[in-house]
Amino acid sequence: MGGPPAAATPQQSLPAHDMGRLLLSCPDRAGIVSAVSTFLTRAGANIVSLDQHSTQPVGGTLLQRTLFYLPGLAAARDALAAEFGATVAAEFAIDYRLTEAAHRKRVAIMASKTDHCLLDLLWRNQRGELDMSVVLVISNHPDLADRVRPFGIPFVHIPASAANRAEAEQRQLELLTGNVDLVVLARYMQILTPDFLRRLGCPLINVHHSFLPAFIGANPYQQAQQRGVKLIGATAHYVTEDLDEGPIIEQDVVRVSHTHTLPDLVRVGADVERAVLSRAVQWHCEDRIVAHGNQTIVF
Amino acid sequence: MGGPPAAATPQQSLPAHDMGRLLLSCPDRAGIVSAVSTFLTRAGANIVSLDQHSTQPVGGTLLQRTLFYLPGLAAARDALAAEFGATVAAEFAIDYRLTEAAHRKRVAIMASKTDHCLLDLLWRNQRGELDMSVVLVISNHPDLADRVRPFGIPFVHIPASAANRAEAEQRQLELLTGNVDLVVLARYMQILTPDFLRRLGCPLINVHHSFLPAFIGANPYQQAQQRGVKLIGATAHYVTEDLDEGPIIEQDVVRVSHTHTLPDLVRVGADVERAVLSRAVQWHCEDRIVAHGNQTIVF
Amino acid sequence: MGGPPAAATPQQSLPAHDMGRLLLSCPDRAGIVSAVSTFLTRAGANIVSLDQHSTQPVGGTLLQRTLFYLPGLAAARDALAAEFGATVAAEFAIDYRLTEAAHRKRVAIMASKTDHCLLDLLWRNQRGELDMSVVLVISNHPDLADRVRPFGIPFVHIPASAANRAEAEQRQLELLTGNVDLVVLARYMQILTPDFLRRLGCPLINVHHSFLPAFIGANPYQQAQQRGVKLIGATAHYVTEDLDEGPIIEQDVVRVSHTHTLPDLVRVGADVERAVLSRAVQWHCEDRIVAHGNQTIVF
Amino acid sequence: MGGPPAAATPQQSLPAHDMGRLLLSCPDRAGIVSAVSTFLTRAGANIVSLDQHSTQPVGGTLLQRTLFYLPGLAAARDALAAEFGATVAAEFAIDYRLTEAAHRKRVAIMASKTDHCLLDLLWRNQRGELDMSVVLVISNHPDLADRVRPFGIPFVHIPASAANRAEAEQRQLELLTGNVDLVVLARYMQILTPDFLRRLGCPLINVHHSFLPAFIGANPYQQAQQRGVKLIGATAHYVTEDLDEGPIIEQDVVRVSHTHTLPDLVRVGADVERAVLSRAVQWHCEDRIVAHGNQTIVF
Repeated sequence: MGGPPAAATPQQSLPAHDMGRLLLSCPDRAGIVSAVSTFLTRAGANIVSLDQHSTQPVGGTLLQRTLFYLPGLAAARDALAAEFGATVAAEFAIDYRLTEAAHRKRVAIMASKTDHCLLDLLWRNQRGELDMSVVLVISNHPDLADRVRPFGIPFVHIPASAANRAEAEQRQLELLTGNVDLVVLARYMQILTPDFLRRLGCPLINVHHSFLPAFIGANPYQQAQQRGVKLIGATAHYVTEDLDEGPIIEQDVVRVSHTHTLPDLVRVGADVERAVLSRAVQWHCEDRIVAHGNQTIVF
Repeated sequence: MGGPPAAATPQQSLPAHDMGRLLLSCPDRAGIVSAVSTFLTRAGANIVSLDQHSTQPVGGTLLQRTLFYLPGLAAARDALAAEFGATVAAEFAIDYRLTEAAHRKRVAIMASKTDHCLLDLLWRNQRGELDMSVVLVISNHPDLADRVRPFGIPFVHIPASAANRAEAEQRQLELLTGNVDLVVLARYMQILTPDFLRRLGCPLINVHHSFLPAFIGANPYQQAQQRGVKLIGATAHYVTEDLDEGPIIEQDVVRVSHTHTLPDLVRVGADVERAVLSRAVQWHCEDRIVAHGNQTIVF
Repeated sequence: MGGPPAAATPQQSLPAHDMGRLLLSCPDRAGIVSAVSTFLTRAGANIVSLDQHSTQPVGGTLLQRTLFYLPGLAAARDALAAEFGATVAAEFAIDYRLTEAAHRKRVAIMASKTDHCLLDLLWRNQRGELDMSVVLVISNHPDLADRVRPFGIPFVHIPASAANRAEAEQRQLELLTGNVDLVVLARYMQILTPDFLRRLGCPLINVHHSFLPAFIGANPYQQAQQRGVKLIGATAHYVTEDLDEGPIIEQDVVRVSHTHTLPDLVRVGADVERAVLSRAVQWHCEDRIVAHGNQTIVF
Repeated sequence: MGGPPAAATPQQSLPAHDMGRLLLSCPDRAGIVSAVSTFLTRAGANIVSLDQHSTQPVGGTLLQRTLFYLPGLAAARDALAAEFGATVAAEFAIDYRLTEAAHRKRVAIMASKTDHCLLDLLWRNQRGELDMSVVLVISNHPDLADRVRPFGIPFVHIPASAANRAEAEQRQLELLTGNVDLVVLARYMQILTPDFLRRLGCPLINVHHSFLPAFIGANPYQQAQQRGVKLIGATAHYVTEDLDEGPIIEQDVVRVSHTHTLPDLVRVGADVERAVLSRAVQWHCEDRIVAHGNQTIVF
């Protein structure tokens, strides 16, 4: 083992803008890994890590994430992606996404009155734990403005309720469309319409305060207490038009007992919610997630 | 801290037949703990541990488990219980159960073709981990006979299906009624009728191979895979007339990912099932569980 | 089960200043629970919860925590404690502590440059999760002043190093002695002398960034990585003169793998550190912890 | 998701003898993944999963596990391995291992008087959970013979103690050398000499009943109780000449409290020991583990 790893590990001394990520999804057949890795090698890249999953040994779907190091990636990226699309991707019918690690995703966070998920994301981001750039916080209540301001991020109050949904969504879309790569619902307590999802044009991640599919819908902690469960949990998932039914990214639970009152469940659950949501956001921002049907593969 | 605890700890050197357990449930009011503990002290008992829970600070239900040491308990027990009933219990409207730790519960296990829960209970019992006496194994299939026999416990094959349910239950009841204090359903795959539950006259504990209330019903691992959950679990609960709805005793989960095939989920889940069931059976046999509505308090 | 618990549960509608806590430690013998509970009942108290532990069935030490509801406790407390001391405590040689739930402990937090433990405590306290009043933050570096100020708590910078230890501790003691009930070391990276501990006159809780007793001393994450462990952890403990050897209050771990770099371990470990420390502080502030030798009983 | 996965998943319908595993370790440089995958593709193989880890982005060690499907592998394997060695492996200085999934490892288990780890392995193997063929159980005590015999596996009693170590090891080696691919120490309580390890010529996996490196040496549960830890654990590791210091394969912990007596710790710990050991054995038998210095990479 020799000496201890130095404080400045190679991961840190390498400029992030030379690290690329290639995500693939395609019908599985022989030769894909070979073709893709040969393409990258000829382009001058060194493969740093490669994770591959086939849904079936023969005849399924191949999903793959490759992290590579290519000096000068920022300048070469567009040409590289175009060439990959015209050659390997065309030959194997590959859906792909080629991103730069240095290109941090632009993220908007939507919240209501509860602060724990929102603050946890902002605080982790401030520490450099999350590979994202938070450009905006939108809330349907003014309550959290003072908590957000110290982070130097714009806080926009857009009142929203069933009564003014169309108008509120219109104002939200004006701020969001084209300006963000991801929207995070950090305990945002308003329903978003299918029309909003379509017009937004980027993924949304939501956190649900139960171990889905248990306790779908409103007041999950109350439902959990009434059912007498011994574990409560939280779920982070992509938002689809089916409420609480989108692909699950991450879940976790915590043990509870008869000594926990309903406020105790809410408090203990808040810790699980923020842990689960921050992991899901981190994985999304590091391009670790590939959706396959209603499931997610997290590499 | 001085020297290490000796191999023969006091817990072991005390004869178990002098250890009693008193479980209470009653409307909460001031003076109950005092009255109960004074009663035990006057009877010559030393309280070894006492756990009490009130569902509300004022006006709720008081639940309590007291473990006490009383030399000569076996001879004195009936008189002690009668006196407690006529005095303290009558005054405070207490439902109570007074048991001897030395009186091991007589248990029947019902299973089908899957062996892991059954064998785990038999093996733990053989090691002395579980405070019970297994008097009988009943199965609707003959497959597990050879696995049960080395443990020296009678194995009775009673074919059971929807077609012969009444007759099968009649034969089961002839063996069970009055002979056992607890029936454990260790992955017994037949429905039991409400009539069977009423005539049995003792509690039943079942293990369900999901994190209830998620994936109620058949094929929970298949449901879990289709929903793409990141944790799978198991639930041990008392059996009531409402299928999969009885009071939950214990639950646990294990992390899974996209690399788990359906057979993997079944295999990984089997470990959670047997862990959860064995804990529930142990707690029941040690009189640690008090039901309160559809919830359990596990002291 | 009837209707769901209302938002205003009885726990919340009862004024906290009528809730008292009585902690006991004494040589075990018959009659103690009875004497204590009878004393409380005669004083007009209702016992809300009672946890008792005997280290041995006969001849050990009895430890007990009783939570009770007594209207008018604030006015009656001193007389009640004096009478308990003169009667029951004297008879049974009981060490006891009688506190009011409404009397929040005054807490000082000491930190260095790392913010996660400090901020987590301040944020939980702001949310009302922790039953304490933070009166002061002391740091040997100025870095965290801006992060503390939004919480409205005084931040005092007292430079401290091996070179000026005596002088620094003198200044710290001038601020702390008599003014606080607890000092929390939230990743405070300076050694405190035995003399400081003696003169401080109140308990200190520290968080160590390893699963003690593994990786005692400096750079535990580096040690963990070199040893190739599969779980890393954190430990909250009372501070004694023996560095990293005080009674453990709480520990937890998280799974890691070969994909975690040293910065990853530090980041993932930070989550465990703050979780473990906040639980330990919460339990201490709720008078849930009784020390017994070098162990803690957490009721 | 369409219909549910059929009972006969493709994983099961593919003959295992056509599945190969290729494990690599070599100095990292560009082109390795490409060269390896191109070699396999030209040989007619389909890559089912590929996991790769580089210890550093540039200049470190590359470790890789590839699972591939190649009809007719059994007949082709030796020629394939030879060609790989002469071409790709030679060019990139690769240490490699090419195995067939259908070739189950021959395993001997050594135990003493405690049965839980031994029985758990035998029982999982009987269920088909572990990809191994247990050819022999060796014990230095006769106690477990009756428990092993129902599994149809030879049980050999070789008395062993400090007094007859050389002779006992000689007899053990006569049975083991050349006959097994792995030796599992399932709570075998005798020291094995460095000479034994050298002459054995195959890996050994041991389970230590603590969360290493805490509580190295004898009586770890007693040490844990005295230190007052809140979690106890177990560790499975490869055996090297440095006692309790070999590369860690798997670890886990379980929460304990002041209510656990020493026998309780032993009982609760036994569950962690058998879980940890069975996972380590399974991963080894599936060629998932690559050692790197004193660490293990588990793919």
